[in-house]
Amino acid sequence: MSDAVSPLAPTSYPEMPDIAGVRLATAAAGIKYRNRTDVLLMVLDAGTSVAGVFTTSRCPSAPVDFCRESLKSGSARAVVVNSGNANAFTGKRGRETTELTARSAAQAVGCRMDEVFLASTGVIGEPLDAGKFAGVLGDMAATATADGWEGAASAIMTTDTYPKFASVQVKIGEVTATINGIAKGSGMIAPDMATMLSFIATDAAIASPALQSLLAEAVQPSFNSITVDGDTSTSDTLLMFATGKVDMAPVTHADDERLGEFRAGLHRLLVDLARQVARDGEGASKEICVTISGAESDASAKRIALAVANSPLVKTAVAGEDANWGRVVMAVGKAGEPADRDRLAIWFGDVRVAVDGERDPAYSEAETSQVMKRDEIEIRVELGLGTGSWTVYGCDLTKAYVTINGDYRS
Amino acid sequence: MSDAVSPLAPTSYPEMPDIAGVRLATAAAGIKYRNRTDVLLMVLDAGTSVAGVFTTSRCPSAPVDFCRESLKSGSARAVVVNSGNANAFTGKRGRETTELTARSAAQAVGCRMDEVFLASTGVIGEPLDAGKFAGVLGDMAATATADGWEGAASAIMTTDTYPKFASVQVKIGEVTATINGIAKGSGMIAPDMATMLSFIATDAAIASPALQSLLAEAVQPSFNSITVDGDTSTSDTLLMFATGKVDMAPVTHADDERLGEFRAGLHRLLVDLARQVARDGEGASKEICVTISGAESDASAKRIALAVANSPLVKTAVAGEDANWGRVVMAVGKAGEPADRDRLAIWFGDVRVAVDGERDPAYSEAETSQVMKRDEIEIRVELGLGTGSWTVYGCDLTKAYVTINGDYRS
Repeated sequence: MSDAVSPLAPTSYPEMPDIAGVRLATAAAGIKYRNRTDVLLMVLDAGTSVAGVFTTSRCPSAPVDFCRESLKSGSARAVVVNSGNANAFTGKRGRETTELTARSAAQAVGCRMDEVFLASTGVIGEPLDAGKFAGVLGDMAATATADGWEGAASAIMTTDTYPKFASVQVKIGEVTATINGIAKGSGMIAPDMATMLSFIATDAAIASPALQSLLAEAVQPSFNSITVDGDTSTSDTLLMFATGKVDMAPVTHADDERLGEFRAGLHRLLVDLARQVARDGEGASKEICVTISGAESDASAKRIALAVANSPLVKTAVAGEDANWGRVVMAVGKAGEPADRDRLAIWFGDVRVAVDGERDPAYSEAETSQVMKRDEIEIRVELGLGTGSWTVYGCDLTKAYVTINGDYRS
Repeated sequence: MSDAVSPLAPTSYPEMPDIAGVRLATAAAGIKYRNRTDVLLMVLDAGTSVAGVFTTSRCPSAPVDFCRESLKSGSARAVVVNSGNANAFTGKRGRETTELTARSAAQAVGCRMDEVFLASTGVIGEPLDAGKFAGVLGDMAATATADGWEGAASAIMTTDTYPKFASVQVKIGEVTATINGIAKGSGMIAPDMATMLSFIATDAAIASPALQSLLAEAVQPSFNSITVDGDTSTSDTLLMFATGKVDMAPVTHADDERLGEFRAGLHRLLVDLARQVARDGEGASKEICVTISGAESDASAKRIALAVANSPLVKTAVAGEDANWGRVVMAVGKAGEPADRDRLAIWFGDVRVAVDGERDPAYSEAETSQVMKRDEIEIRVELGLGTGSWTVYGCDLTKAYVTINGDYRS
């Protein structure tokens, strides 16, 4: 694997404030990678509520099965994440591994096993030796600190070229709450599931059912609207924790009127993290933002936007800085959604390249070429049928994607 | 564009016999390419019946619209095909072009306009200047000969690296009929439509409705079971002609009992042509044959097979000769079809790599590596749920695909 950092990496990173009630520790267990951290332990104070969204894969990993069970308790005290091995398609041994890890974490933190959450990311199908890190969880729990967010984001990376984290502060009623988030993901990224891995924590007091509603809603325009390769991981896991350390009457319902700013802040945070994932798409040289408007419904717009953002021919054209809007028409046509060829208009950036089903009379190749040199390529299609719209974030398809994925295991 | 021929090109080509009632001519009109033929005229004797299957795109090309209309006549006398420009997304001018071309062809051949069929392939969105070739159709009709099949296959190529043609002879009742076919296609190839372009002709006497049934059936395991990049063309057109020159009582229904061998021969011919298209997939270095068995239904097996064959991560792994069956599990899981992780078994070639939801205890990396060096990679998944099965043909994803599609227009 190359050590090159994506040209789309953030140029500056936010300060990550502490979240009262959350402590973090990382360790280097040598699961697959050498000379880097690959285990993360999050320790959560008693009283922390939890929400989660997981892959829709019919073949989920053992940790996903485990988390779905734990989620029923509504309470979280520990999260163990390892990178390098996904513990997916590992059969009975996979379940033994999650049991052993959860038991070790519960002992280390002093909680019930159904308050432990697990996530693993990396190669599928290889047995994961939990012995490698189960033994260090006790030490990690003892040394965990509140300021470990950046390190946590680094420990969960696989083919990521940069750590992904973000933070927002919002008013919730009279008080101020903080929301921190980290994420990882670079390949095997497609929407209609959670994401690869992302962990969000807030010090607000929000009961699990309300937290679950907020998270499920915020995931739609963010992690469920990104795609790198249209491939859905067996391990996609998005967990959110609310420690309740802020001095406030707990939110018990998602329609609590104090949530306005919190909801907007959570959306902003998740879109930020999701775009960081899309921009670190394996081999990506450009981000692609596809907006469909004028569709019969938002759902229809989303399906068309995904068809465009997932099209290998659109993605390679963007990589080649070719404003090949014919391929955009192709992708709109193949989506199977209502579309009228002779009403379509298409923009690359702010340049309209097609209108009324044919090339814009004012089309300028030179002007369009300038747009295609940018790092962020905005493709906009107006269908002229209704009021549905949606935006999807993806990236281009380069030779580097083929290189990275042609020799991942070796 | 490189002049390199795919490593998967056929090592030998069949002799193409004449089809009584079919004459062919090609010309170099300089539509996009230099120093090669780019126009094909097929001249069909009076009494020729016709069937057709077209793209399911919501944004079809002007020639597809035109053919759908002509098909209603049930009669075919002329086919005009050009390569280099798809006449797709060209609005009113596109329709004027099809009108002009069809009128010129009808004059040249001496038939009605609704007995003319048109197909165009190449760049989308550029106006096609029919004047470039409409004027030469008269000469072409006068000089067309029965032995032009190989030349016809070459004239319709775009990014294809080799011409695609095949022929079978079959008994139909007491007599022998011949079926010839040509095809083109290399990128923007995905199933659930016809294909790129393919033209089939037989000297058998089969009425249009029966011919349509036979074609619609034969397209399912052939052109509708291949994929190069999951992208669906706006121009996919498969036309079949029956000249009725064989001395036989005409077939009027698809359930005519004389059709047994004909039906099998047509299936064989279309699978042959479809695999030639898959093997010429842009940048392909290996053919991938994905067979799913033990599914709840054939339709379910097909959807899973397509998810595997279209997965960029599976395709890049094959390109890298990496038996990464974890990615096969991922693709099975994302298909959204019934599957039980813990009952899956997976083979690469004849080597079983996974069984009962985990790595095969007898797994040998060395043995599997040998399989991955082959030109044809067979991936087989047994789901253990039912009796549904399907096979899909695709190809790997290499850096050459990115190169070819990053600078197609320029």
